Parts: sequence; C-alpha cells; structure tokens
Amino acid sequence: MKSHPHHRTALVVVSHPDAASFNHAIARDSAAVLEALEFTTHLCDLYADSFDPVITKGEVRGQRTGDQLTNMYISLLASAELLVVVHPNCWGAPPAMMKGWMDRVFAEGSAYAFEKSCDQGDVPRGLLRIKTALVFNTSNTGEERERVEFGDPLERIWRDCLLQYCGVQRTIRRVFRIVATSSLRHREEWLREVRQIIEDAVLKSD
Amino acid sequence: MKSHPHHRTALVVVSHPDAASFNHAIARDSAAVLEALEFTTHLCDLYADSFDPVITKGEVRGQRTGDQLTNMYISLLASAELLVVVHPNCWGAPPAMMKGWMDRVFAEGSAYAFEKSCDQGDVPRGLLRIKTALVFNTSNTGEERERVEFGDPLERIWRDCLLQYCGVQRTIRRVFRIVATSSLRHREEWLREVRQIIEDAVLKSD
Repeated sequence: MKSHPHHRTALVVVSHPDAASFNHAIARDSAAVLEALEFTTHLCDLYADSFDPVITKGEVRGQRTGDQLTNMYISLLASAELLVVVHPNCWGAPPAMMKGWMDRVFAEGSAYAFEKSCDQGDVPRGLLRIKTALVFNTSNTGEERERVEFGDPLERIWRDCLLQYCGVQRTIRRVFRIVATSSLRHREEWLREVRQIIEDAVLKSD
Repeated sequence: MKSHPHHRTALVVVSHPDAASFNHAIARDSAAVLEALEFTTHLCDLYADSFDPVITKGEVRGQRTGDQLTNMYISLLASAELLVVVHPNCWGAPPAMMKGWMDRVFAEGSAYAFEKSCDQGDVPRGLLRIKTALVFNTSNTGEERERVEFGDPLERIWRDCLLQYCGVQRTIRRVFRIVATSSLRHREEWLREVRQIIEDAVLKSD
C-alpha cells in the first residue's frame, strides 16, 4: 500500500506546436516522474487543447473570464503545489501561446490580489499555493551570447515579474541548448537531468 | 506642392483589446504625425484585425506561413522604414497578441536569414529596412520598482533580442506610467510627448 499522508497536486504546462518536439518529451517525463512521486498530476498541452491566448477587454479590466478552458486552467493553477512549465525561448520571451496562458490564467482574484481591490500601481498579495516552480526552456543560442548580447529576459519574466509576484518563492530554471543541433544521446541525457531536477526539488521541499 | 523626393513607409502596430484605451490613443496620434511627416503609414490594430498569434508547426520549422493576414503583415514589416509598436507591459513582456505578431511576422527569410539557410545556433543576418523603431509601453509599475525588482525585461526583448537581431540599429523606447491612476491632463501631455519623440526621431534620421 502506498504511503501518502495527503495528496499533492502538480501541474505541467507545455507550449510547442509539434507533439514530437523535445519540449513535449520534457513535459511527458516531468509528468511521469511527478506521478511516480505520488503527485496527482495534470499535464496541459496548450496546442492540443486549442487554448485561445488572446486576453479579452473584460479580463484586462479585472473581470472574471467566461472562457471554459481558461477557467479550468485557473482552477488547476490555483490548486497546484508544484508547477512545471516547458517552452522554447522565442525572442527572449515565451511564445504567444504560453504568454497567453500567463496573461489569462494568472488572473486577479485567483493568482494575486490588491489591497485596494484594483490595480492602482500598489504592491499586490500573491495567492498561489505553489511552493516550487520549475521552468524548462529550449534554446538555439549559446549561453555566453544569451547572457552578454540578449540578457536572458526570460529568467526575470518567470521568476521576478510573474511567479514571485503571485507568491511563488522558489523558481528553478534550466535551459537546454543548442537544441537544433543536439544528438539523440544528448537529449536523453537532458531528460535524465529533468527527472533528477524534479526529484531533487521535491525531496528538498519535503 | 509637397516636396518629397521618395515615399517613405511607416508601420504602426497596436495590441490592446479596448479601442478606447490609452494605447490606442498613442497609436492613432503616432499614425497622424507620421502622415503629417509625409510617410505612407499603415496602422495595424491586431485585435480589430482578429490576428491569430499562435505560431504553427510549419512556421517554427522555418516554412512560409499560409495565413493571409500574417503574410500581409510580413509584407508591411518588410517594406517599412519606420516602425512604431504600442502595447501595455504585461508580466514584463508583450501581451500574447503582440507576442504572436513578433513570433509569426519576424519570419526567417523576410526579417532575418542564416548563412547556412537554417538555424544551427549561428549568428543571423538582419533583413529589415527599418532605420528607426519606436516602442511605446504603458505600465502600472513605478520606475524604480520596475528596474530593481523586475529588471524591465521588455527593454531587452525589443531592442536586443528582436530588433537588433533583424538589423534594426536604432530603437527608442518610452514607458508611460502609472497609467491606471493617470489624469486626462497627464495623458494629453504624454500624447504631446509621443508626437515630439516621433518628430525628433524622423528629423534626426534625415
């Protein structure tokens, strides 16, 4: 019999149009290792779900969305204790599909709130229960060029602009590069690393 | 009779779901001042055009898009000598709608090219004719907090990751803040500043 004092929930979100991509392999292996660690795990494939990333006029003004899938995503995010996101680095930012998941799903009232109950530029209160977030990115830019020429804006977007704002204190990020020219053997090594990073993150947070 | 030795073209792109927003006022005034400066000016309202920001599997593999609107946007970008983009700062990045315009419209073969004719992580060649790009953002975060806590990733995304990569050497960016609590009078001042920035940019590049 399995010994789990309480059911923990994990959410894995992937944004890549090709189900045969390395991004999808990372997402599948992340979900598998989380299941093995006895997390109740949801894997959201934004392309397979035909998620609409375009935020509406009502939503930017703080209204609750009427979109059924977006509401389901909001519930999954609100109940998750561990989050894994997987996407390629695309112009130093997430691709539009993942960006829309950030725009619409990290909603006022469920991911964060203002003391004055609307945005007047003041500091918000994070509402998420997530203890650890893991960000896996793929890239075709070398590490030094990314740092010196581009400044790696993705790091700050996820860690500082979004997750910390919504109450997530611990973000672990790993970028795999250069994916375009990587060998199968190299990718298998990277997948072992993904599983190890997740196991370590879960064990350290226990 | 007007004296213009050749017709210059400008492209103004705005991403905001509310046509009554300050973002739209900036875009309209930008287009008006460019017309007055005798640019042939196109104003693209991504929401009004119902642009689909989701990049396809073919496009991420370097294929030319089959989407008619995206192809029109690609032509407009390729022929522009001056670019103005307008959008709110949304989690330190452009909203999904504008992000998708970056993902799909700055396409391989029209905005940049690789010497080896595919992405193997090497340095590309920028193909755009744009001499000056102007980025206008709205924000509800104070300047110091943006710099210290969030690091303003938008600056690097536009200037270093996208525009310079595609051959645009001169990017001018202005962030208007705090928009949520700004007065009508303050917004009118900001619009005067928008017109002045564009006039100065055009005169200096002549």
